[in-house]
Amino acid sequence: MPKPPLPDDIVETLQRPNPAVIGVVRADGAPVTVPTWYLYEDGRILVNMDAERRRLDHLRSDPRVSLTVMDRDDWHNHVSFLGRITLQDDPGLADIDRIAQHYTGERYGYANRDRPRVSGWIEIDSWHAWGALRR
Amino acid sequence: MPKPPLPDDIVETLQRPNPAVIGVVRADGAPVTVPTWYLYEDGRILVNMDAERRRLDHLRSDPRVSLTVMDRDDWHNHVSFLGRITLQDDPGLADIDRIAQHYTGERYGYANRDRPRVSGWIEIDSWHAWGALRR
Repeated sequence: MPKPPLPDDIVETLQRPNPAVIGVVRADGAPVTVPTWYLYEDGRILVNMDAERRRLDHLRSDPRVSLTVMDRDDWHNHVSFLGRITLQDDPGLADIDRIAQHYTGERYGYANRDRPRVSGWIEIDSWHAWGALRR
Repeated sequence: MPKPPLPDDIVETLQRPNPAVIGVVRADGAPVTVPTWYLYEDGRILVNMDAERRRLDHLRSDPRVSLTVMDRDDWHNHVSFLGRITLQDDPGLADIDRIAQHYTGERYGYANRDRPRVSGWIEIDSWHAWGALRR
């Protein structure tokens, strides 16, 4: 699988508000997948979760993640990343506001202000693309 | 997480040709995700791969999979399954033809007749739904 830096067409695709699915590994070694919003910033990929998500326990045990991003106009064009995630609190919800604005277009950020959130920064180790993004 | 049988609204969603992402675990324990076509049949989920896919090695080592299915009209409505996969050859390409027809609408089945394919039947252990499909 190729390594970063990413080609321009993949960066351009990543910068749109696409559907994405993150894969993590549970303590018993089973894979777990769930859709997620993401934001591509400066070569890293930002995701954000409710602080009570069980996924955070999995990520604290094993920071290895896979993220699949599908072109919102045709999901057959897609790119998947293997990487490692670094978790940090999101006080003030600045990260989730930025992500929510990217996806919803709303000026006022993320709707639910009552619950703490945690951000995860994914450092990309390798990637694999398909469809129109295939090498 | 709830167990099968699946509620009717989730079955109805699954029966449409939706985007999906399968998660498996590599020999070194890292998660790997990739988009896939699937077909829901009689409570099980059928997927199909080129016989040379590295994913097959992962699945032969560890049959545990996660499959996330996103409503093709709004990916924020989604359901994710944890389960186990059983692999079998697809001689004559009958399975991939059925799957391809479901997604493409083409009468004549899967375009590439030159390469052997392998089917995987996913037995659902548990599931988790979100958005309009949330319990």
